[in-house]
Amino acid sequence: MAVYTEVSAEEIEGFVAEYGLGEVLSFKGIAEGVENSNYLLQTDQGNYILTLYEKRVDAGDLPFFLGLMEHLAGQGISCPVPLHGRDGKALRQLCGRPAALISFLEGLWPRRIQTYHCAGLGGAMARMHLAGADFGLRRENALSVAGWRPLLEDCKGRADEVKPGLADALAAELDHLERCWPKDLPAGVIHADLFPDNVFFRHERLSGIIDFYFACNDFFAYDLAICLNAWCFEHDNAFNVTKARMLLQSYSRERPFSAEELAALPLLARGSALRFLLTRLYDWLNHPEGAFVKPKDPLEYWKKLQFHQQVHGPGAYGLDLKAP
Amino acid sequence: MAVYTEVSAEEIEGFVAEYGLGEVLSFKGIAEGVENSNYLLQTDQGNYILTLYEKRVDAGDLPFFLGLMEHLAGQGISCPVPLHGRDGKALRQLCGRPAALISFLEGLWPRRIQTYHCAGLGGAMARMHLAGADFGLRRENALSVAGWRPLLEDCKGRADEVKPGLADALAAELDHLERCWPKDLPAGVIHADLFPDNVFFRHERLSGIIDFYFACNDFFAYDLAICLNAWCFEHDNAFNVTKARMLLQSYSRERPFSAEELAALPLLARGSALRFLLTRLYDWLNHPEGAFVKPKDPLEYWKKLQFHQQVHGPGAYGLDLKAP
Repeated sequence: MAVYTEVSAEEIEGFVAEYGLGEVLSFKGIAEGVENSNYLLQTDQGNYILTLYEKRVDAGDLPFFLGLMEHLAGQGISCPVPLHGRDGKALRQLCGRPAALISFLEGLWPRRIQTYHCAGLGGAMARMHLAGADFGLRRENALSVAGWRPLLEDCKGRADEVKPGLADALAAELDHLERCWPKDLPAGVIHADLFPDNVFFRHERLSGIIDFYFACNDFFAYDLAICLNAWCFEHDNAFNVTKARMLLQSYSRERPFSAEELAALPLLARGSALRFLLTRLYDWLNHPEGAFVKPKDPLEYWKKLQFHQQVHGPGAYGLDLKAP
Repeated sequence: MAVYTEVSAEEIEGFVAEYGLGEVLSFKGIAEGVENSNYLLQTDQGNYILTLYEKRVDAGDLPFFLGLMEHLAGQGISCPVPLHGRDGKALRQLCGRPAALISFLEGLWPRRIQTYHCAGLGGAMARMHLAGADFGLRRENALSVAGWRPLLEDCKGRADEVKPGLADALAAELDHLERCWPKDLPAGVIHADLFPDNVFFRHERLSGIIDFYFACNDFFAYDLAICLNAWCFEHDNAFNVTKARMLLQSYSRERPFSAEELAALPLLARGSALRFLLTRLYDWLNHPEGAFVKPKDPLEYWKKLQFHQQVHGPGAYGLDLKAP
């Protein structure tokens, strides 16, 4: 939940005038998203999202993010589209920050995941991966395996405050992942943050995907590994193999897996669990007192990591491997 | 900024069905308000605010608050109106909490106060005071002079952590206010929390007043005293007498002041400054680590209190006392 930058009525009215979108009728900060300030803006022409990019986002990455949304929407993927001002620009400044006005997407994100959510997600993710194929820009994944060592170095001195023995366990896991991480799998533009609050549904059908601010170039299967963790565990951290099967099967109908991708899934799932464990651990240990944003529990991802450590093949994720 | 209760898609869809308002198109937590959870809800029939009343609100007061909004709206005051479900009820339960669906009010609240804002506010407040005259319910002001002693008792042991000498200064001020607080001034239903974020404007005209969850029966002039503090000081805590004049003059055009009210204004302004100082001090000293809501600086109100302590009559607030 986040509004870090207060925008005055005069400022928003001046900003909206650059787009010719009519009168501002209301303007409310949204308690969603943790990286940027988001406002829901209503004018007499419609609803829009205003995003002010805060300091955790590298301004140099914004042309990639905004360009990707436009590219994907142009390929028929339901995602927000940055609006262009009368001067043609989509990326502007407001209150001293980079800012963009983005189309509003209808739908609700699922607080309680059902199997149909996972099925809808898998197919949409595969279509998104295919649609990104001819996008012209590249962005490395700063939070893939090469990025985890520096995070662990920052945290390891205090990791045992969260759980005794955690620092050593994470170091051993990272050693393993660095040694075994795949070098060559089908890759392209991935979302890299497809948590339920970034996926909207209407009438049990996926209606849109939002928040492309972690999107990057990486293995397609890593996006799936992130979703195995984010969508397929119950609140008691039990793994729901039916949800995983729905996710993977519906994905593979749109973009079939290679044998190497399937074999790498357990390792990618461990890596994705470690990635969110480390960033949550970092935020947990470093959040300022009285911060707006309550940090998320890193140990949730420790339990997910332990599950994947016990997995010996992709069959554990519900796939019928006789007919891949 | 606040969303304390997470409502699932299924829960909100079930809730909206009780009103027959069509399909839920979107549902977003709003980063405004600190007492309750507020969501902006869009259905194919319009926009609404869903409020879940959290534990700081006494459920026994909700019929007063919701009834007042309905009463005032019926008298032509632009304020949100609670919707009634198909069963006739406006006050319901959602996620184990009292909840109400409320009409959506267009307009922007002013982040930078101009004199026209103060003029619009004064007239609207006076009309609201008059419109409340025949409202059938009563609610005492728990945060008037009788309520400040217990707050001070809770805080005085640690008040000097915020500013050395503050505990003694507050005790002396409270002694004075308890001794001199007026017993008999024109009274009725007041809003009691008319800060800028509760007042919307369109085209430089006031378009509505929201958030009646501190409304109560008290002196009308106490509502004005709250606004002198909330609207008429600049960011450097300099008092802007022009804004005060606009506020009071526009009020008195709709409801002329009695001589006693005018004479009491400086004391009421001190009292209102102490009231917000004490509640902010309490929140400052007692906010949980990592809380969602960043506490507001109590010393802002210490500086305002000191200003009013130097005031010897209502002329300091810009009134031309030759023609009251």
